[in-house]
Amino acid sequence: MNVPAFPSKLLENAVNEFASLPGIGRKTAFRLVMHLLRRGEPEVTRFGESVIRLRNEIKYCRECHNISDNEICSVCSDPARERSIVCVVEDIQDVMAIENTRQYKGVYHVLGGIISPVDGIGPGDLKIGSLIAKAESGRLNEVILALSTTMEGDTTNFYLYKKLSHTGVEITTLARGVSHGDELEYIDELTLGRSLINRTPFSV
Amino acid sequence: MNVPAFPSKLLENAVNEFASLPGIGRKTAFRLVMHLLRRGEPEVTRFGESVIRLRNEIKYCRECHNISDNEICSVCSDPARERSIVCVVEDIQDVMAIENTRQYKGVYHVLGGIISPVDGIGPGDLKIGSLIAKAESGRLNEVILALSTTMEGDTTNFYLYKKLSHTGVEITTLARGVSHGDELEYIDELTLGRSLINRTPFSV
Repeated sequence: MNVPAFPSKLLENAVNEFASLPGIGRKTAFRLVMHLLRRGEPEVTRFGESVIRLRNEIKYCRECHNISDNEICSVCSDPARERSIVCVVEDIQDVMAIENTRQYKGVYHVLGGIISPVDGIGPGDLKIGSLIAKAESGRLNEVILALSTTMEGDTTNFYLYKKLSHTGVEITTLARGVSHGDELEYIDELTLGRSLINRTPFSV
Repeated sequence: MNVPAFPSKLLENAVNEFASLPGIGRKTAFRLVMHLLRRGEPEVTRFGESVIRLRNEIKYCRECHNISDNEICSVCSDPARERSIVCVVEDIQDVMAIENTRQYKGVYHVLGGIISPVDGIGPGDLKIGSLIAKAESGRLNEVILALSTTMEGDTTNFYLYKKLSHTGVEITTLARGVSHGDELEYIDELTLGRSLINRTPFSV
């Protein structure tokens, strides 16, 4: 059922805006708007303003292109972080995922995408120039390529490897193998096969 | 997985606001906010303002308590509508559902809820006084009780019937029976039993 005959243009506008979000249908949009309508005025104003402020005031870190409230993000401005190790990721979600592991003490470089001819994204659309400049500056020891293990990720990895190899900086990538919690019978053959070939000494 | 360590307070605020909506988890909220972030500034401002304006500028019809852009809603101000027939509904969603059928030419009265002791909603929380006043004015011929066919709906129907019976206005309710498209074997016994008792002459 589509939501028909809105009794109010304001209501219709708000529903249309919510329905324009990915994964939100018109029925859900209507339900969300009706929910907001039942809330207090300050709460709803805060909701709307949080969205407007985010878009208008957000900055991107000058160093790593991560999202940030300041010119330099909290990672890049942290003196405890190892600035000679740069982890190259596709997007800010990946930064958050890696930060969540609490295993990484270096800094990041957010490409802002991945080479994908199908989507018309080439190297020129990504923050690759500034990465090469960093590697050429001589202040880096290691670049970790932490892109998705997809065709596009592999393509981008290879492109970056070619562009960075002349700098002499060590280039590494994430370990591939069996995920934690995987049941052996459900693992794809490629992963399982490579995990066997690259098996590591058992330790307790 | 919960979304951790936001690189930006603005981002975190926006995600929290979306996650406060019913049925939107933190992962979905984050995805929606990231989507908004990729949109143009005017679009995002329009999104935020549609919500703020809805809450701050919306009005409720003085006659029927339906949501409206003006003092009197589009139904109540329509000269083609039969003002002596009032359809009593729980909420504005119900007005929209009935309007969608294009079968109703009377006006509405939105109670703004339903008597529900479990949720602490009594008759005093609903727009019942103004309904009785309308019925007592002598200008009504019929009141249609179109509430949900639930325990609470039946309770409210009964309460309204008691309160309106002295006015002499005809009180009707929606026909109950087998839904369009129902397969007989899946219909609950109560509905099927009543449909048999209240069977109607066959017509083509």
